[in-house]
Amino acid sequence: MDNKKLTDLLNQVKNGNVEVEYALSQLKQLEYGELGYAKIDHHRQLRNGYPEVIYCEGKALDHIQGIVKHMLERNNNNILCTRASQEVFNAIFEVTDKALYHERAKIVVVKREEYKVTEKKILVVTGGTSDIPVAEEAAITAEVLGNTVGRLYDVGVAGIHRLLSNTKVLQEANVIITVAGMEGALASVVGGLVDKPVIAVPTSIGYGANFGGLSALLCMLNSCASGITVVNIDNGFGAAYSASMINNL
Amino acid sequence: MDNKKLTDLLNQVKNGNVEVEYALSQLKQLEYGELGYAKIDHHRQLRNGYPEVIYCEGKALDHIQGIVKHMLERNNNNILCTRASQEVFNAIFEVTDKALYHERAKIVVVKREEYKVTEKKILVVTGGTSDIPVAEEAAITAEVLGNTVGRLYDVGVAGIHRLLSNTKVLQEANVIITVAGMEGALASVVGGLVDKPVIAVPTSIGYGANFGGLSALLCMLNSCASGITVVNIDNGFGAAYSASMINNL
Amino acid sequence: MDNKKLTDLLNQVKNGNVEVEYALSQLKQLEYGELGYAKIDHHRQLRNGYPEVIYCEGKALDHIQGIVKHMLERNNNNILCTRASQEVFNAIFEVTDKALYHERAKIVVVKREEYKVTEKKILVVTGGTSDIPVAEEAAITAEVLGNTVGRLYDVGVAGIHRLLSNTKVLQEANVIITVAGMEGALASVVGGLVDKPVIAVPTSIGYGANFGGLSALLCMLNSCASGITVVNIDNGFGAAYSASMINNL
Amino acid sequence: MDNKKLTDLLNQVKNGNVEVEYALSQLKQLEYGELGYAKIDHHRQLRNGYPEVIYCEGKALDHIQGIVKHMLERNNNNILCTRASQEVFNAIFEVTDKALYHERAKIVVVKREEYKVTEKKILVVTGGTSDIPVAEEAAITAEVLGNTVGRLYDVGVAGIHRLLSNTKVLQEANVIITVAGMEGALASVVGGLVDKPVIAVPTSIGYGANFGGLSALLCMLNSCASGITVVNIDNGFGAAYSASMINNL
Amino acid sequence: MDNKKLTDLLNQVKNGNVEVEYALSQLKQLEYGELGYAKIDHHRQLRNGYPEVIYCEGKALDHIQGIVKHMLERNNNNILCTRASQEVFNAIFEVTDKALYHERAKIVVVKREEYKVTEKKILVVTGGTSDIPVAEEAAITAEVLGNTVGRLYDVGVAGIHRLLSNTKVLQEANVIITVAGMEGALASVVGGLVDKPVIAVPTSIGYGANFGGLSALLCMLNSCASGITVVNIDNGFGAAYSASMINNL
Amino acid sequence: MDNKKLTDLLNQVKNGNVEVEYALSQLKQLEYGELGYAKIDHHRQLRNGYPEVIYCEGKALDHIQGIVKHMLERNNNNILCTRASQEVFNAIFEVTDKALYHERAKIVVVKREEYKVTEKKILVVTGGTSDIPVAEEAAITAEVLGNTVGRLYDVGVAGIHRLLSNTKVLQEANVIITVAGMEGALASVVGGLVDKPVIAVPTSIGYGANFGGLSALLCMLNSCASGITVVNIDNGFGAAYSASMINNL
Amino acid sequence: MDNKKLTDLLNQVKNGNVEVEYALSQLKQLEYGELGYAKIDHHRQLRNGYPEVIYCEGKALDHIQGIVKHMLERNNNNILCTRASQEVFNAIFEVTDKALYHERAKIVVVKREEYKVTEKKILVVTGGTSDIPVAEEAAITAEVLGNTVGRLYDVGVAGIHRLLSNTKVLQEANVIITVAGMEGALASVVGGLVDKPVIAVPTSIGYGANFGGLSALLCMLNSCASGITVVNIDNGFGAAYSASMINNL
Amino acid sequence: MDNKKLTDLLNQVKNGNVEVEYALSQLKQLEYGELGYAKIDHHRQLRNGYPEVIYCEGKALDHIQGIVKHMLERNNNNILCTRASQEVFNAIFEVTDKALYHERAKIVVVKREEYKVTEKKILVVTGGTSDIPVAEEAAITAEVLGNTVGRLYDVGVAGIHRLLSNTKVLQEANVIITVAGMEGALASVVGGLVDKPVIAVPTSIGYGANFGGLSALLCMLNSCASGITVVNIDNGFGAAYSASMINNL
Repeated sequence: MDNKKLTDLLNQVKNGNVEVEYALSQLKQLEYGELGYAKIDHHRQLRNGYPEVIYCEGKALDHIQGIVKHMLERNNNNILCTRASQEVFNAIFEVTDKALYHERAKIVVVKREEYKVTEKKILVVTGGTSDIPVAEEAAITAEVLGNTVGRLYDVGVAGIHRLLSNTKVLQEANVIITVAGMEGALASVVGGLVDKPVIAVPTSIGYGANFGGLSALLCMLNSCASGITVVNIDNGFGAAYSASMINNL
Repeated sequence: MDNKKLTDLLNQVKNGNVEVEYALSQLKQLEYGELGYAKIDHHRQLRNGYPEVIYCEGKALDHIQGIVKHMLERNNNNILCTRASQEVFNAIFEVTDKALYHERAKIVVVKREEYKVTEKKILVVTGGTSDIPVAEEAAITAEVLGNTVGRLYDVGVAGIHRLLSNTKVLQEANVIITVAGMEGALASVVGGLVDKPVIAVPTSIGYGANFGGLSALLCMLNSCASGITVVNIDNGFGAAYSASMINNL
Repeated sequence: MDNKKLTDLLNQVKNGNVEVEYALSQLKQLEYGELGYAKIDHHRQLRNGYPEVIYCEGKALDHIQGIVKHMLERNNNNILCTRASQEVFNAIFEVTDKALYHERAKIVVVKREEYKVTEKKILVVTGGTSDIPVAEEAAITAEVLGNTVGRLYDVGVAGIHRLLSNTKVLQEANVIITVAGMEGALASVVGGLVDKPVIAVPTSIGYGANFGGLSALLCMLNSCASGITVVNIDNGFGAAYSASMINNL
Repeated sequence: MDNKKLTDLLNQVKNGNVEVEYALSQLKQLEYGELGYAKIDHHRQLRNGYPEVIYCEGKALDHIQGIVKHMLERNNNNILCTRASQEVFNAIFEVTDKALYHERAKIVVVKREEYKVTEKKILVVTGGTSDIPVAEEAAITAEVLGNTVGRLYDVGVAGIHRLLSNTKVLQEANVIITVAGMEGALASVVGGLVDKPVIAVPTSIGYGANFGGLSALLCMLNSCASGITVVNIDNGFGAAYSASMINNL
Repeated sequence: MDNKKLTDLLNQVKNGNVEVEYALSQLKQLEYGELGYAKIDHHRQLRNGYPEVIYCEGKALDHIQGIVKHMLERNNNNILCTRASQEVFNAIFEVTDKALYHERAKIVVVKREEYKVTEKKILVVTGGTSDIPVAEEAAITAEVLGNTVGRLYDVGVAGIHRLLSNTKVLQEANVIITVAGMEGALASVVGGLVDKPVIAVPTSIGYGANFGGLSALLCMLNSCASGITVVNIDNGFGAAYSASMINNL
Repeated sequence: MDNKKLTDLLNQVKNGNVEVEYALSQLKQLEYGELGYAKIDHHRQLRNGYPEVIYCEGKALDHIQGIVKHMLERNNNNILCTRASQEVFNAIFEVTDKALYHERAKIVVVKREEYKVTEKKILVVTGGTSDIPVAEEAAITAEVLGNTVGRLYDVGVAGIHRLLSNTKVLQEANVIITVAGMEGALASVVGGLVDKPVIAVPTSIGYGANFGGLSALLCMLNSCASGITVVNIDNGFGAAYSASMINNL
Repeated sequence: MDNKKLTDLLNQVKNGNVEVEYALSQLKQLEYGELGYAKIDHHRQLRNGYPEVIYCEGKALDHIQGIVKHMLERNNNNILCTRASQEVFNAIFEVTDKALYHERAKIVVVKREEYKVTEKKILVVTGGTSDIPVAEEAAITAEVLGNTVGRLYDVGVAGIHRLLSNTKVLQEANVIITVAGMEGALASVVGGLVDKPVIAVPTSIGYGANFGGLSALLCMLNSCASGITVVNIDNGFGAAYSASMINNL
Repeated sequence: MDNKKLTDLLNQVKNGNVEVEYALSQLKQLEYGELGYAKIDHHRQLRNGYPEVIYCEGKALDHIQGIVKHMLERNNNNILCTRASQEVFNAIFEVTDKALYHERAKIVVVKREEYKVTEKKILVVTGGTSDIPVAEEAAITAEVLGNTVGRLYDVGVAGIHRLLSNTKVLQEANVIITVAGMEGALASVVGGLVDKPVIAVPTSIGYGANFGGLSALLCMLNSCASGITVVNIDNGFGAAYSASMINNL
């Protein structure tokens, strides 16, 4: 239910076309969609046409299908499903053939209206080639949320000239997402080269004393560069969501 | 050396008033001030009148004094000294009586020009009364960096009505900094109430299985609310610096 | 051996109908059933008709079968088998076709007498849809232990209105079990809304710096809300057992 | 503001004796007392005459004094201040000479009305003599909250006969709080001996691989005895608060 | 090469029957058997007829086969292979059909001479049924090393009467090995009941905050009972080896 | 109460010289001495003249004094007080001038009867000079418990010849206690050189990634040498107690 | 592009045979090869004929193939692919049949020119047989990088004579790489026996409190022997790369 | 005892001037100096005039004095005392007035012969000003060990131009020691800029999720730059010792 529908309802109440009781039940519904196993938040649409988001990991397939169905019936928003395996995609595709699968990013998008696109750019930067899946989760998310997205991959600090020869690309961005595993030092160097907010995503790429991304996470949290904030390990989605908020201020 | 001085120098080169060699040495100097024990970065002033920043913890008193002196001689920027004990303040005060001490925030400010202030507001929110020192580090920093700052203290989630009755205050902010120790759940709840970027600062307030702020840090990194990014434990300065960057985009 | 049988035995001793020696061997047996690989505790039945409980994870299939057989022969109590895979269920079903499988909860119940049900309600609340398996372990356990059980799922704090619009449901409960992964903040908010004991169950749902449920566990242990106690990660059974004890005081 | 005052106010509104506007401001006040650095929750008194609680660690002395003053002015409830050093006690005593210091428990009580006492007993049990400070925090708290409290100290499992010869004392309790450091095994053994809820408090007593109470905490969380829930390391207050809730159901 | 062979060789040198050079090469060989990928220690046989031991985990199958072959050729000692999967057993069986597989203990024994058996007893005690595989690794090892071994399984502290009714069994042992996962409290209680050395083996049985056996390990290391020493998580072999040394002093 | 007194009492019952009721109260007392804050275990004396032991860390001074007084009154055993600061010694000395302070070991001994000494030797070995305080805690304890004790200090593995040239000293011992911090490798090397049980004591000596003794602890638990068991970090007392039990089998 | 090609290009610019603009684009290319998903660093060849290196873990198969193709086209250097599964080898073999698979080391080498070999020796030493895969990663890498490599396997400290009888082998090496899991004490002992730099590689071999190699890592970092530096767990490649640098100084 | 004295002794044996027995006792002494609490290793002098080294932390003052005295009597080597507080220096100065105190480095040097100096340079680089104490421990150690030492301080990666404008200084070094706290990214960037071995020293500088240097340590261990090895947190001495070995190959 978007702003228009809400206004219509209130006008109908005003005009006496609908009973107060009925309107109340509708408004109650407005709060969230009740499925028993899930309570779907519809507040978001009252804002800027943000898509509905489903985090798929750990959810039963029938639950995911039920949530998607409910969303399709309620409004015409796009739907963004993250951490979606091939199996999850298949289950969603059974519900709607508008579902598209971004395999490397493990994202399913049900695109039902065009993305609004700001011109200000979010740049997604990775330390290595292995960080690309997380970076793509961020990039696809940022695109679905309506941002122009740039990609600058494999510019890790151990070959610093690869990064430095792209300084201009860095400086043209409005918000930068740095994605790096192992020692995760990329965020600090990028943070020192630009005047824009940097969101750092540690990845679980690495082995041994990497401890599942802990090394990159601690590195980024302890950065001596100012202007860097951090999200959870491998959380490309979260970085893009925050970046998009900032990009659209 | 600010933009004006830089232009002057280049013009003098153009007019043949100074030798190329001399100009080079000046430009070299531009890169950073060399003190042996410290290399002071002057790039920052080429930007928006940002102050010089000194992180005092772990630095020898004579080193801090030397750095401040060097800054005072080089330009007319404000100087922001964080993690400054009373002893550090005294040492700085010996160098310049313009030094002011914000005791609770452990910040020394050497104010030499007025702060430029944006109207858009950064709101600093704390879970408890014990989190105030970290919150004040953030608030003072944000003020020195030229932002309007609001404070909303002691609205932790265990008494959720204290937070909910301030929803309007939350929604009027452009960027929100949430400061919380113990379980650090404040960030998640605030993140669900607003459409603006939230920067979460875990604090070391707590005991036992708090493990020096680890519980709040992990809580914030794992937030299921979108739009939240995190900085290091007790890092009020870093949160404010990022928030200021975002607020001034 | 229940209270009645015990009294009979003692009366027979008194009347000289059984030898002291024989009675002793019977009483010895009373202590526990000896299977070599297991010593089955029968003290529990002397209490309130509590079921026998088997924790199946890590036990060999033939051991589980032997334990169930022994229990079936000893008395008429219900049997509750937790952490039971499909394979474990099959093995138990070979022993008794009264075995029923609650798949999502991974619980097998061998129901041999009706549950006694108290009217006071235990409410099981989850932060998300992915937490449902742990919540169901708690809910089924609480039902088998003879409690009225309510379910309120997917009311995580990032969309706080979903929880607040259910305040009345929360307040009608006598004991509340909160089940949440990721940042696990649900327990703190619920704890602030009610006057009843809250048992918090952290789940391993999440990724990255969740570290297998550590983030939710630490969050709950450090809750600034009073009246919250915590059980092990994913321990729905333990929470329900304690809640049932409290509910039946 | 207690139930009576609230009813009076509403009656005055009904009778037209006070303006709606004035009543609203009063009710607004009802939510919490605003001190700037603290927002004091007064909801609690609407319940069972529970005392006001101040957690003193990490709070500035002037803040603590301000909070106590505010509480003294608002109502006639008792005030319980935990984690209070001698210095904190002195500061509170300056504000009110009704303040009493329980030194071993590090608790200050400002007693202004008699405790209501239930007959059902909460028993506080410790593994060793060194655990007594935490146990006393629990015991004093439980007494102030209106419970009959028993103490059974130094019955750790390494000399199990000390515990077993007190089985009757254990079984007469309605709720048991077990307080233990080092390996923290006391909770499991007690849990196996009684049919009542057990709340386990790990303490930081120990050294080396005790890691500040981690060993006892993990031990208690992993207890194979049913009916045990756990609170934070050294959190005697929290255990007593939950125990009191359960004891008064 | 055992003591007898060594004496023979030295006598032959003395009598001039073998060249010094040849004896040297033999003695050099005595030090260890050189296989390139392994250096097999034969010093052990100079002692009490101890078996050769191979830790199989992580070793390539052809390496294990080569080591066994080498041992078979060198002397007539028994061979004990720990952490042996079914696949490893098959590989060893290809080399010698004297290989016997103890499946639950994951031990392969190549028995070539009778075990010498001391009358003094090593007792292996477990907290639960799931701990049996580790306990069997200890028990089988102790038997192969020439000890009388008793087993007392599933006497965890949550049902303390199961342990107490076996006090006599405990006190008749000369050395006790306690095997327990979860909270691992068994060691402390046993340690308080007997006057004999107790070797505690934490197991990885458990889940959640068990962290792969860490909870039991820390519990045992922090035991407040005297006379307890600890080995690595799941290290049944190591416990039995030490116990056997002690039992044969 | 020792064996003789116990026999006397029972004889008096037999002869009718004391009432059953009185004897019972005496036997009850036998279990432990009740001080309220402590329950003192007197079972130990029924064994081999073992001393009473008080772990002083974390105990209040008046509690320690009370416990010592109680012990002095009950029997004539020696008393061993570990982790005793100078302040603790002074407090004990107020109670009895028989108290002697071993400063480096932080042990107070109240010697009231001669130690019985076995000829079999316990050897205490350290990796470095800094490990001596922990080693002395072990050595003094072992002496008070009636063992012949040898000391071999500063033979860490980085200068392996210092250890190897003492092989004979190692081999003459009946039980060996190895005390080492930093990497703690001493236990593995010693374990490979001898056929006797080795008890390893990790110490907290070191810095950085030593993490308070964790590095040495993990090293010792993971030793690839057989025959090694481990006690808590810095637990010289525990190692000596176990060693003494083994030495006196 | 090697030194020769670079000189040619510059000469052509000098002679006017190529335009400055074209040369610039060539030099730009020199920086790195741009593949979108990877930026391949060609600086390395300007040095000593070092091979190109690809770390394969976590990279998509098509990305690896693309990178190898690009390298084959650019120059004639050898290519070293680490952490390569059989599947990765197959993919590379599709691109070039010069690919050779070192299965135990999980290394693929595309050998296109002879290795230059220094006479100074790098010795690779392991504690056990299970450490061989990591050791072989180091040994093969060192050979491809142009070093004479010695191997000394299974000389762990628990059988110290195996190591000591190879002292001469150790002392003849110029650089030593010690590879060990479990307690990782090998590095300390070797470090005490030689005057040459020792690079320690902890391995993840072990179980329980080994925590994936943490025990060996901490042991090596805390070594009390001088002259030891450490690389990541299982990082045979990194150790060999550093050793080669040192060996070729 | 140096090479010359050793040869003399052997010649005297050959000539019959000294008894074999006496020579043996001398050679025995050669192994190490026996002080009871310490065994001083004199092997080192047989090498290149390396100084004696004493790690002072945790050693008793009288032990340190005893060790220094012993060294002074035995030969004419320099003595290097690390981790020496002012108090330790005073104690050493009592023994010899040749002791000099490097306060920032916490090093005492007893200089008795001139350092031999190689021309090849070891460069010590720090990320910040606060890392200087650890850097000075490295620099002074390297000087005493006979190396030419360069210092490049405060060139952390957040202001990368400070490092890049010193590329030439980096490339002129033969071995580089990078000293950095917080995120410790300096090592990776330096490693990518040079072809020489880099030894990384993490420091404990930082706060919060720095966890006493853990963040920098993990960062350095996981560096994606080749040619980097790591030492313990704050271990400037160890880095310099290894660097010196490499520099003198």
